[in-house]
Amino acid sequence: MIGTGRLEAFSDGVLAIIITIMVLEMHVPRDPSLVSLRPLLPVLLSYVLSFVYLGIYWNNHHHMLHVTTRVNGVVLWANLHLLFWLTLVPFVTAWMGENAFAPVPTALYGAVLLMAAIAYYLLQLTILSAEGSDSVLRAALGRDVKGKISPVLYAVAIASALVRPWIADSIYVAVALMWLVPDRRIERALTGRMENAR
Amino acid sequence: MIGTGRLEAFSDGVLAIIITIMVLEMHVPRDPSLVSLRPLLPVLLSYVLSFVYLGIYWNNHHHMLHVTTRVNGVVLWANLHLLFWLTLVPFVTAWMGENAFAPVPTALYGAVLLMAAIAYYLLQLTILSAEGSDSVLRAALGRDVKGKISPVLYAVAIASALVRPWIADSIYVAVALMWLVPDRRIERALTGRMENAR
Amino acid sequence: MIGTGRLEAFSDGVLAIIITIMVLEMHVPRDPSLVSLRPLLPVLLSYVLSFVYLGIYWNNHHHMLHVTTRVNGVVLWANLHLLFWLTLVPFVTAWMGENAFAPVPTALYGAVLLMAAIAYYLLQLTILSAEGSDSVLRAALGRDVKGKISPVLYAVAIASALVRPWIADSIYVAVALMWLVPDRRIERALTGRMENAR
Amino acid sequence: MIGTGRLEAFSDGVLAIIITIMVLEMHVPRDPSLVSLRPLLPVLLSYVLSFVYLGIYWNNHHHMLHVTTRVNGVVLWANLHLLFWLTLVPFVTAWMGENAFAPVPTALYGAVLLMAAIAYYLLQLTILSAEGSDSVLRAALGRDVKGKISPVLYAVAIASALVRPWIADSIYVAVALMWLVPDRRIERALTGRMENAR
Repeated sequence: MIGTGRLEAFSDGVLAIIITIMVLEMHVPRDPSLVSLRPLLPVLLSYVLSFVYLGIYWNNHHHMLHVTTRVNGVVLWANLHLLFWLTLVPFVTAWMGENAFAPVPTALYGAVLLMAAIAYYLLQLTILSAEGSDSVLRAALGRDVKGKISPVLYAVAIASALVRPWIADSIYVAVALMWLVPDRRIERALTGRMENAR
Repeated sequence: MIGTGRLEAFSDGVLAIIITIMVLEMHVPRDPSLVSLRPLLPVLLSYVLSFVYLGIYWNNHHHMLHVTTRVNGVVLWANLHLLFWLTLVPFVTAWMGENAFAPVPTALYGAVLLMAAIAYYLLQLTILSAEGSDSVLRAALGRDVKGKISPVLYAVAIASALVRPWIADSIYVAVALMWLVPDRRIERALTGRMENAR
Repeated sequence: MIGTGRLEAFSDGVLAIIITIMVLEMHVPRDPSLVSLRPLLPVLLSYVLSFVYLGIYWNNHHHMLHVTTRVNGVVLWANLHLLFWLTLVPFVTAWMGENAFAPVPTALYGAVLLMAAIAYYLLQLTILSAEGSDSVLRAALGRDVKGKISPVLYAVAIASALVRPWIADSIYVAVALMWLVPDRRIERALTGRMENAR
Repeated sequence: MIGTGRLEAFSDGVLAIIITIMVLEMHVPRDPSLVSLRPLLPVLLSYVLSFVYLGIYWNNHHHMLHVTTRVNGVVLWANLHLLFWLTLVPFVTAWMGENAFAPVPTALYGAVLLMAAIAYYLLQLTILSAEGSDSVLRAALGRDVKGKISPVLYAVAIASALVRPWIADSIYVAVALMWLVPDRRIERALTGRMENAR
């Protein structure tokens, strides 16, 4: 059993790099005019969307690891598995942005989000299993409605992307907004536990 | 409520990457002659300017978080919002440099600086709200003249960039110099508090 | 003698960057069609393979440093030597992927893996020498079968790559799977020692 | 006065990124043949040289900060100034490598090394001034022969690069080897101090 420090540090490093190199896909236009920025607008929009998603992952990861006391080899690999799917975000973001939210890139974007959501769920399972059933995390998650509904919404988005990409994009935005509401569950559970301990 | 450690680590990571990947925009010339470096001069100058700005942000961020004792979900997102605008710095730096400080890129550069300044101000507000009114940070900021004057100067610079870019560039340099004077306010407030505590 | 903290932080940083910039070699296709992704398949496959290898290195490095109590200058350089070979992984990964596992790139991929394995072995030796013969690490390694068999398998793979690349690729996958089994040796040795100490 | 932790973390981040993105300048050849790697040989050689130099800087920085107890605003900026010159290393490394050690790029490489050496010296001065004259660092540095001779050698190399680049390259290698001998001065001074304290 190993502390969570280095796992957090490594994940932070990877997330910080992913979030930053996405900007490299916004290629600097040659012309110094405002008009030349216009084709970059969808690229910027898809960047904003992915920035928010990665921020959500960092935030939730931060909260989850905060109440995790120990990790084992399986947790380390479940974490790397999550990071793997997140490293593909810059690729699908750029492809979707450069093609102005065309059907196939929009569907692939959802597929990567879906895989990342599944990977996050698996990571959660491995941590819960290492922590035991009376852990703070177990209490904090409750019924984990958001975690269960997100993959379903991504699946709907992927299907609709091929016929009406704007529906898929709206779903991506809606899911992000749903998560943006800060995850107070863990903070609440922690406070509750501390109060119970008195 | 959560400690500031991982927030600092993540912000450091993103700032370190932003500051370093800006160099990737200085494309290596094919010719091994001194003359071939000349078109890179404005790119280098804009890089130096942005490096100093990011250094200022890192420095001030460092000082602010140093006197912050706890963060909540809102602070985490206010921090991500600041990082978002800072990740756009490499893009506007390259565009301004490659077009030798042309009007529109120079104005956009100021716009990103303006948005980052506003984001920093919002981050400060959220931390102050989490810390309470008798916090060290509250005392340290005082009237926060620099923080209030900078956005005004950026706005002036954006307007003047479209007619006389060199005025805007001078303002950017002047604001940077104004901030370069290390922020002794917090150090002073800390010392004062410690003396009062005796 | 110096603590291991900053060595771990620096290694984590380099490994996180290597693992993330590899994705930049998956060039975004111009066409928004599924067909245009097909040439990227070998690139993706080689990326997955390298991601797993870097994950293994991070994992083993993590475990090894976890039971290391102090490092000296020689260890710092042995660690940099390992990082040097690992920084070449994105290059050989891209070359192998873009050429769909052609003989020479596949052989060079194995050569970099071989050099990294040797560098890891040297790092282990320098740490063992700094720690002393009754260290936890010494006990944990045991006969270190995996560490000794891997270079041999890489050498076989390099030779076979030039005639039958798929044999080499299969060996790379097999070695990765062999290591993927989490390294419980150190965890076991730690537990054993703690039990002995009672 | 502020602790050294975040200064080290930020510097580690920047150094880790510099050392890793240099590899991105080794452009993957299209052809899967051994011959197509040949033009990359000078690029690889210049990469190895710069990797060793950045390793030396990281090592020395690590040792210096290890015996530093507090930093102030001036130290933070002296550190950023050093990082600035080091961020230019990937640029000059690529230019020198891609032009097979031609005169002007080789001279510019030396100029960046010279500026980095001066910046390191200034950083050392500001830390010494913050630490006081009876600090461990003061004792550790002794006469600081290496630190004083390196800039002279770089200046000689820059001048000779324009007529005989290979002389400059030999000097760069020689200076690197001179520093590669691990800096036992600080370790010795620390040991000595601890022995005196008994």
